[in-house]
Amino acid sequence: MWFMNVTVGRRTRHHRTVTFDARNNAVRLIDQRLLPHEFRIVSTRNFRETACAIREMTVRGAGAIGATAAYGLAQGARAFRGRDLETFSRHVHTVYQRLQAARPTAIDPVNAMNEVRSRMGDGGTVAEKQALALSAAEEFANNDVKHCEAIGRQGGPLIQDGMRILTHCNAGWLAFVDVGTATAPLYAAQAAGRKFHVFCDETRPRSQGASLTAWELAQQGISHEVVADNAAGHLMQRGEIDLVIVGSDRTLGRTGEVANKIGTYTKAVLAERHHVPFYVAIPLSTIDWALVCGRDVPIEERDPSEVLGAWGTVAPTRNRGSGSRSGRRVYVRVANPGSAARNPGFDVTPAELITGIITPVGIFKPQELWANRRKLGWRE
Amino acid sequence: MWFMNVTVGRRTRHHRTVTFDARNNAVRLIDQRLLPHEFRIVSTRNFRETACAIREMTVRGAGAIGATAAYGLAQGARAFRGRDLETFSRHVHTVYQRLQAARPTAIDPVNAMNEVRSRMGDGGTVAEKQALALSAAEEFANNDVKHCEAIGRQGGPLIQDGMRILTHCNAGWLAFVDVGTATAPLYAAQAAGRKFHVFCDETRPRSQGASLTAWELAQQGISHEVVADNAAGHLMQRGEIDLVIVGSDRTLGRTGEVANKIGTYTKAVLAERHHVPFYVAIPLSTIDWALVCGRDVPIEERDPSEVLGAWGTVAPTRNRGSGSRSGRRVYVRVANPGSAARNPGFDVTPAELITGIITPVGIFKPQELWANRRKLGWRE
Repeated sequence: MWFMNVTVGRRTRHHRTVTFDARNNAVRLIDQRLLPHEFRIVSTRNFRETACAIREMTVRGAGAIGATAAYGLAQGARAFRGRDLETFSRHVHTVYQRLQAARPTAIDPVNAMNEVRSRMGDGGTVAEKQALALSAAEEFANNDVKHCEAIGRQGGPLIQDGMRILTHCNAGWLAFVDVGTATAPLYAAQAAGRKFHVFCDETRPRSQGASLTAWELAQQGISHEVVADNAAGHLMQRGEIDLVIVGSDRTLGRTGEVANKIGTYTKAVLAERHHVPFYVAIPLSTIDWALVCGRDVPIEERDPSEVLGAWGTVAPTRNRGSGSRSGRRVYVRVANPGSAARNPGFDVTPAELITGIITPVGIFKPQELWANRRKLGWRE
Repeated sequence: MWFMNVTVGRRTRHHRTVTFDARNNAVRLIDQRLLPHEFRIVSTRNFRETACAIREMTVRGAGAIGATAAYGLAQGARAFRGRDLETFSRHVHTVYQRLQAARPTAIDPVNAMNEVRSRMGDGGTVAEKQALALSAAEEFANNDVKHCEAIGRQGGPLIQDGMRILTHCNAGWLAFVDVGTATAPLYAAQAAGRKFHVFCDETRPRSQGASLTAWELAQQGISHEVVADNAAGHLMQRGEIDLVIVGSDRTLGRTGEVANKIGTYTKAVLAERHHVPFYVAIPLSTIDWALVCGRDVPIEERDPSEVLGAWGTVAPTRNRGSGSRSGRRVYVRVANPGSAARNPGFDVTPAELITGIITPVGIFKPQELWANRRKLGWRE
C-alpha cells in the first residue's frame, strides 16, 4: 500500500496530486503553493483556469503537469456544445495551445496531450471523441502512477533496514500523480516493513526539499530530518549517509548524464569521494534520446529574487511586536539589498558519478541506457 | 587604503567593527544583527552591557569578539572608583568572568583579556592599572588590524585581473576589527588596482555570505553576486570560478586540517575535482597546536530553527495585502511545520584539499605548518 495518504485534522485519506471530477467537468489539484503550511484542494472549472494553475505553479513537477494538461484537454473538449466536427476540432486546438503555453519549455504536457488527441481520432462523433478524451487522460494519469510504482518495485530492495538516505529537491508524489520517482523506493521499502531515515536537503533557493519532500515524508510517517544543502559533505565524512537517491529533469539516453535541480552534481561528487551509492530514479519519459552531450542541456537562469530571499510563514512565537501578522505567507529579503545574484536552476551530473538509474523496467548503469534503448522506450 | 568604509546616505567614512570611546567609557559596536538592512552603531555604557552585546551577537566573529572583550575589561576596570588594590583586583575578576561567560566556548575573548590583565600587572596604583588596561586593549585591537593587513599583503598577489573568486560565509572585516582575513587579499588586490568578481556563497543556514559578506563587498565597491550554496559545483563545471578563499574557526597546526563554517569541506572537494586553487586565510590566533586529529574538533550542533526557516526583511513590493508591515525583520518558517532538522555548524577540511594557508607571516602548505611552528607563534 504505497498510495499517498494525507492527514488533515484527524482524517487520513488517499490523495492523488491531480484528479478529475467528471460530474462537474473540473480538474482537482493539491495547491502546492500553499504547502507545507496548508493543505487545500482546488478545482479548475474550465481549461483556462487549468492552464492558469499550471502557469502559476499551483501544480508543478513533470508527471503532475503532464496529467493536468491531459485532463485539461479532456475538460476543454467536454465543454464543447454542438455536433460539428470541424468546429470541435478547432476548439480542441485552441485548448491544446492554451495549455501548452502555460509552461512553454516543459515537454510532459505536450507528450500527454498528444496521447489524448491521438486517441480522440478513434471517435466518429463529437460525443465519442469527448468520451475518448477523458478515458485517455485517465489512462495517462494511471500510467504515471504505474510507472512510479514500477520504479518502487525496482528500487525498493536498495533500501535496507537501518539505512540513512539523502535526497535532494522533490521528486516525490507531488511532482507526479502519486508515489513519485525518487521517493518510490522509499515507500516500497516502508511497505515491506523496513525502517530507515531520510535526510532531506533543504534545496535552496526554492526549498522544495524542506517544504514539499519533508511534508510528503511526514504524511507517510517516514523518519526524516531537513538539512542545509551545506551539511551533506560533513554527514558523509562522519559516515552518516548510506545511499543517495534523486530524481531527474532530463537524462541523456546516449551518455547517461543526468540534468536535475541545482546542487545534485555536488552531492554526486561528495558521494563518489565517500563511496556512497548514488542513484537516480526516472520514468521513461525523462529520457532524452537526441542530445549527445550534457553541456548542450539548456540550463535555465532563474529569477535572482529566489536566491536573495525566501518565502515562508511568519512564525507566531518568534515575532512578537514585529508588526507582522503570524501565519501569513510572506517573502523576506535575506541578502544585502544592493547585491545581485546568479541563479542557475539545474546542473548536469556525469555518468561516471552515478551508481545506477532506477527505471520502471530495471536498474541500469548510466552507460548502459543506450544499449537497452528498445526496452527503455526509444523509437527510431 | 584598505580600511573599511561605510556609506550611509551620501556620507562615506571609515568604521572599525569595534572601537572605544574613552571620554564616555563606552564600547562602540556596529550592530551586526541589523545588517544588511540597517547600519547602526551602538554604545555599551558598562561591562554588563558589553557582555550582553557579545552574548546576543550584536558583535560576532573571532577577532571582533576578542577586541570587544578586551575593551570590555578595560571599561570595567576604568569604572572602578577607589584606590584599594585588593578591592580593585576582585572587581576586575568579576568583569573578566562576566565577559568570558558571554560566549563560553570562544577562545578569543579569553586570549584577549589575558593579554590585558597581564599588562595591568605593570601598574602600581589603581589609576596606573586603569590606564594600562585601556592601552593594552587598544593594542590588541590594533594588532588584530595589523595581522589582517599582513594577510592581505601575503594573499593579495593571488588575486589576478579578471579572476572570479568564490568565498563562503563571512571572514570579513565584520568578523574582525577591520580588513578581515578571507577578504583581506581581495581588498589588497583592489587597492593595487586589479579588477575581479566575487561569488558569495549564501551560506545557509545563517546566510552570513548573502547578508554580511555581500554587504561588505558592496560597501567597498567590489563586483560580486550572491549564489545558492548549491551552485558552486555547476559554476566550477562551467569554468566560472578561478579561486576559492575562505576563513577558518580553528586550524590544526599539527595536521593542517581546517575547521570552518559548514559547507566549506564541500567547496574544497569540488575545487579539487575542478583543479581550482583553494586557500584558507587565518590569523595566527586561529591555529590549534594541541589537537592531533580533525575528528576531535568538537562540531557544534546548532538550533534546528536555523535550518527550518530564515530571518529576513519583509519586502514592500512583494507582500501587498499580506498583512505584514514591510521593512521589519521577521523569522519565517520555510520547512514543513512537523519536520525536524539536523544543524551541524562546522565541518573539517583535510589538508590534502587545501592549496595554501595564508597567514600574516606567509603562505604555507597545510602540511608545512608544524615545520614552521616557531615562525607561526607556537610556544612550547
